[in-house]
Amino acid sequence: MYKEPLGVKVDFETGIIPGAKKSVRRLSDMKGYFLDEKAWEEMVKNGDPVVYEVYAVEQEEKEGDLNFATTVLYPGKVGKEFFFTKGHFHAKKDRAEIYIALKGKGGMLLQTPEGEARWIPMEPGTVVYVPPYWAHRTVNTGNEPFIFLAIYPADAGHDYGTIAEKGFSKVVIEEDGEVKVVDNPRWKS
Amino acid sequence: MYKEPLGVKVDFETGIIPGAKKSVRRLSDMKGYFLDEKAWEEMVKNGDPVVYEVYAVEQEEKEGDLNFATTVLYPGKVGKEFFFTKGHFHAKKDRAEIYIALKGKGGMLLQTPEGEARWIPMEPGTVVYVPPYWAHRTVNTGNEPFIFLAIYPADAGHDYGTIAEKGFSKVVIEEDGEVKVVDNPRWKS
Ligand SMILES: [Mn+2]
Ligand SMILES: [Mn+2]
Repeated sequence: MYKEPLGVKVDFETGIIPGAKKSVRRLSDMKGYFLDEKAWEEMVKNGDPVVYEVYAVEQEEKEGDLNFATTVLYPGKVGKEFFFTKGHFHAKKDRAEIYIALKGKGGMLLQTPEGEARWIPMEPGTVVYVPPYWAHRTVNTGNEPFIFLAIYPADAGHDYGTIAEKGFSKVVIEEDGEVKVVDNPRWKS
Repeated sequence: MYKEPLGVKVDFETGIIPGAKKSVRRLSDMKGYFLDEKAWEEMVKNGDPVVYEVYAVEQEEKEGDLNFATTVLYPGKVGKEFFFTKGHFHAKKDRAEIYIALKGKGGMLLQTPEGEARWIPMEPGTVVYVPPYWAHRTVNTGNEPFIFLAIYPADAGHDYGTIAEKGFSKVVIEEDGEVKVVDNPRWKS
């Protein structure tokens, strides 16, 4: 009748959650996401690297229940753009989320439905509160895997389509050896 | 109109969240919670130690929103019983919670409304899923502060009364130098 409590040891160095459902996103799974399409095509041909892996422990889609998942976002760039996760709104748009950075260096791009963006840098120990209604994408701006834990309502769901189509209004690039958050030239509000 | 995203650096060594609301529970705030009432009274007279501190970042009580908080649970015993947090059910009983152990050694006692108990040991990296309907209390079984982060629905609320009155069906004690989870002699189902 009651669900069993669960205790799992998460490896903060590798992000692995024993027994969790693992998914893998390769660069070929992210067609159209990066600005430099030639660089993307070249990299897909030459090994199609893993961009990120997710280990998720999820419950039924019920109000008030909670899921948790780690993400291992690998270092890399497509052209000037740092590797990132696809990013999404929640299908139930008013569902919040909490991220906890465990290892590496990166940040989160957030965006309202109207395209107002925010950039929050993350390092181990950074806790990010994603308020209701904001799309969110993480970016690895470092040289090692960027690993974080996320907790989200079990009934939040994912809307990837809006971001897949329009992207974010900002992009995170390396220029002159620096991390820069600049306007997305392809963005149409 | 939209709430602002928030990024805070949480010190995993001290549990401190800059800007968070801090609350302090001293032993005198926990009258009736420990089995050995004489030992409790003596300790309250002799310094009334802090048992735990909580740093909370909380939102309005809205469905789908999330709060987070760290707890610093100090090492200590009242008689044979290890220091613990008061423990509670959620006021909205079907709200889940996720705990992440950051430092020190301890565990979580969980209990259904009918008094069926579970004990989950926790060390840094342990993530505990508290399913809907389970009361939960953390216990420090080590010699240093036991520090953890919790994420819970903003509309979960707290029902402390049931546990304050009846306690848990199990108690966590030190006996012969060992940590033991044993039946609570005062428990009435
Ligand atoms: Mn999300
Ligand atoms: Mn709780």
